[in-house]
Amino acid sequence: MRDVAIIGVGHTKFGRAKTKKGLELFSEAALQAVDDAGVELKDVEALFQGSALPGFEEGQVMPAAFSAGELGLSPVPATRYEGACASASIAVREAAMWVAAGEFDVVLAGGVERALTMGTLFATRTFSMACHAPTEGPAGLTFPGVFGMAALQYSKNYGVPLEELREKMALVSVKNHRQGALNPLAQFYGKMGDLKVEEVVNSRFVADPLTLLDCCPFSDGAAALVLCSAEEARKYTDEPVFVLGTGQGSGGALSKMAGGDLTKPASRVSSARMAFKRAGLEPSEIDVLELHDCFTIAELIALEGMGFFGWGEAADATADGQTERDGKIPVNASGGLLGRGHPIGATGASQVYWVVKQMRGEAPKGIQIDPVPEYGMTDTLGGDFGTLCHLILGRSKRRK
Amino acid sequence: MRDVAIIGVGHTKFGRAKTKKGLELFSEAALQAVDDAGVELKDVEALFQGSALPGFEEGQVMPAAFSAGELGLSPVPATRYEGACASASIAVREAAMWVAAGEFDVVLAGGVERALTMGTLFATRTFSMACHAPTEGPAGLTFPGVFGMAALQYSKNYGVPLEELREKMALVSVKNHRQGALNPLAQFYGKMGDLKVEEVVNSRFVADPLTLLDCCPFSDGAAALVLCSAEEARKYTDEPVFVLGTGQGSGGALSKMAGGDLTKPASRVSSARMAFKRAGLEPSEIDVLELHDCFTIAELIALEGMGFFGWGEAADATADGQTERDGKIPVNASGGLLGRGHPIGATGASQVYWVVKQMRGEAPKGIQIDPVPEYGMTDTLGGDFGTLCHLILGRSKRRK
Repeated sequence: MRDVAIIGVGHTKFGRAKTKKGLELFSEAALQAVDDAGVELKDVEALFQGSALPGFEEGQVMPAAFSAGELGLSPVPATRYEGACASASIAVREAAMWVAAGEFDVVLAGGVERALTMGTLFATRTFSMACHAPTEGPAGLTFPGVFGMAALQYSKNYGVPLEELREKMALVSVKNHRQGALNPLAQFYGKMGDLKVEEVVNSRFVADPLTLLDCCPFSDGAAALVLCSAEEARKYTDEPVFVLGTGQGSGGALSKMAGGDLTKPASRVSSARMAFKRAGLEPSEIDVLELHDCFTIAELIALEGMGFFGWGEAADATADGQTERDGKIPVNASGGLLGRGHPIGATGASQVYWVVKQMRGEAPKGIQIDPVPEYGMTDTLGGDFGTLCHLILGRSKRRK
Repeated sequence: MRDVAIIGVGHTKFGRAKTKKGLELFSEAALQAVDDAGVELKDVEALFQGSALPGFEEGQVMPAAFSAGELGLSPVPATRYEGACASASIAVREAAMWVAAGEFDVVLAGGVERALTMGTLFATRTFSMACHAPTEGPAGLTFPGVFGMAALQYSKNYGVPLEELREKMALVSVKNHRQGALNPLAQFYGKMGDLKVEEVVNSRFVADPLTLLDCCPFSDGAAALVLCSAEEARKYTDEPVFVLGTGQGSGGALSKMAGGDLTKPASRVSSARMAFKRAGLEPSEIDVLELHDCFTIAELIALEGMGFFGWGEAADATADGQTERDGKIPVNASGGLLGRGHPIGATGASQVYWVVKQMRGEAPKGIQIDPVPEYGMTDTLGGDFGTLCHLILGRSKRRK
């Protein structure tokens, strides 16, 4: 297997796309990535695209084929991956595999969604289809509900009084909104940069104990990457970022979840371990982390599931500033889903975009980590722990 | 890269699933495949599942994760692939790649759909979302319309009077319905086995010049396969079937199709060439072919696009009996989509199932090809040439 590098990245402004369709959003990000890589469109041998619900959003399924057409790439293989909010990450993981296997030399991977344009209520309804339809659908479960329950479990498991937990969760929102306000491509650029804990805690309830400001927004947007074999990467760039290891995991219906504990999903533990093992790295070696903070509690759970903190320790570590940009492990310096926005099927590729920007030292002021990170990681969650995907990146090639 | 073998296959009855949900249908096929392979569920390291529109059918997206859960496979990686009617084939192609690359030893791949239960009108409407939404959607284009136009072009391109072409297309329907009537797992088992050309020509028009009997039905169903590395295959079976080569291609909007000729889609030509090249085989060496006869004209176009006959020659070759079970190249001996049924996201895996059954000499009487085929191929089409996928299988490993 060959080493694989990311040599180009592209990212639309997240927010409301207005009249732009998914095809146009993806093309915008893809052309940026191709331009950034310095490759020609004719060099691109395959397209890997994540997208969660384009059928419901704009009556378009099989979007990867039409993106290839729009970009003039036809008839190269073009595949759509759907793993709910993790759609783009699994597309990137597959792209890395095909390049590693030597089947393709240069490929495009990424994702796109128009989740804001469809309206938050309709989006919440349709995206809840990534819950287990036979048992969770009839119960009326939606993702705010799932993570509300997770917060209650977290409080109970670790004996953290709910009011105290709500304040610590609010610190996640404050941090990620502050970072997002500094990010020109974020949905909330220039907004809520000085959010206060009490504003988060006192905003209106969405799903007890989560308030509106504990929840990420739906967004329209796209992000894309150009990947190639590591040996070719230096032809195109002085700053390749290598894919050191990937992992993926699955979970079934919540009702069958081992232990019934939403705070310790086996799918994430398994996926993260797979990625760390492939990369030959440990959590303590990661310098930049973009993780799936669809809700404030989700950031805490993710940090623990990946092994950055022990079970029940992430809330205190957050309060202690350890996940700040200058902390022990900088988490969601780009703003995360809370501040940057969450165009479902694009989010995984957006996370990779921001890790790459960090590793090139190109992130905006207030977002760039100092010193420039050596190793980075993304964590993307689809549904209620149905799909997990982790990607570990590095400025140097894998060690072993 | 390692050689890859198919060591187990499973297939539900195609038709109306009644109360069975997609999860149950897929589990039925998957458990059959696991049983057939003689592996244990705990040996399965990943799941690759094709499904086109489960969100519209039963409010379930990300179905692969829940299938993994239903089968007790969690937390293994479980990915859904969506390439409209080619969804299962691209899932199988990816599965073969991950095994070839040495990342997994034993995996499950397949597909599932409930396309009949949702009703033909709603199915036709939703599946037309695999056309190019911005230009073909507003024109009211559906797949019968696309293939009606293709038939008109075929008639014009090759100077075949339309009435003559309609009779030759009808021969495809007669052949595939005769074969389907012999197949106990087919939707039309025991039905229309003695269909006459005039019945096809005189059945009611769906999209001029195509009649109802020129069109395949929508179906509910699932099919699944167990793949493993070739070196391990003999541990499990005396009759492994090897994956010799795969190909995939994409096409964009019809309005941008080179030459505007629906009878010569570049996506199919490119995909088939890729598969033949990887397999080191030529069309003349294929002994059994299951191809995408969603409409009678589609079978003719597919045969030419893959290189089994010259442009404009497949209609006469069909009339000449060359595609019969005992002809030069047996096509859709299982009944094809016309006679076997077409559960969209399952079809590609069903095609592989039938090629494997042929190669083991296990196909039902009247379907089994004599002598037992050495090399086989599947052709699966998604949308109006948006996604093409080809898989070439053999009883012996690749030559080179």
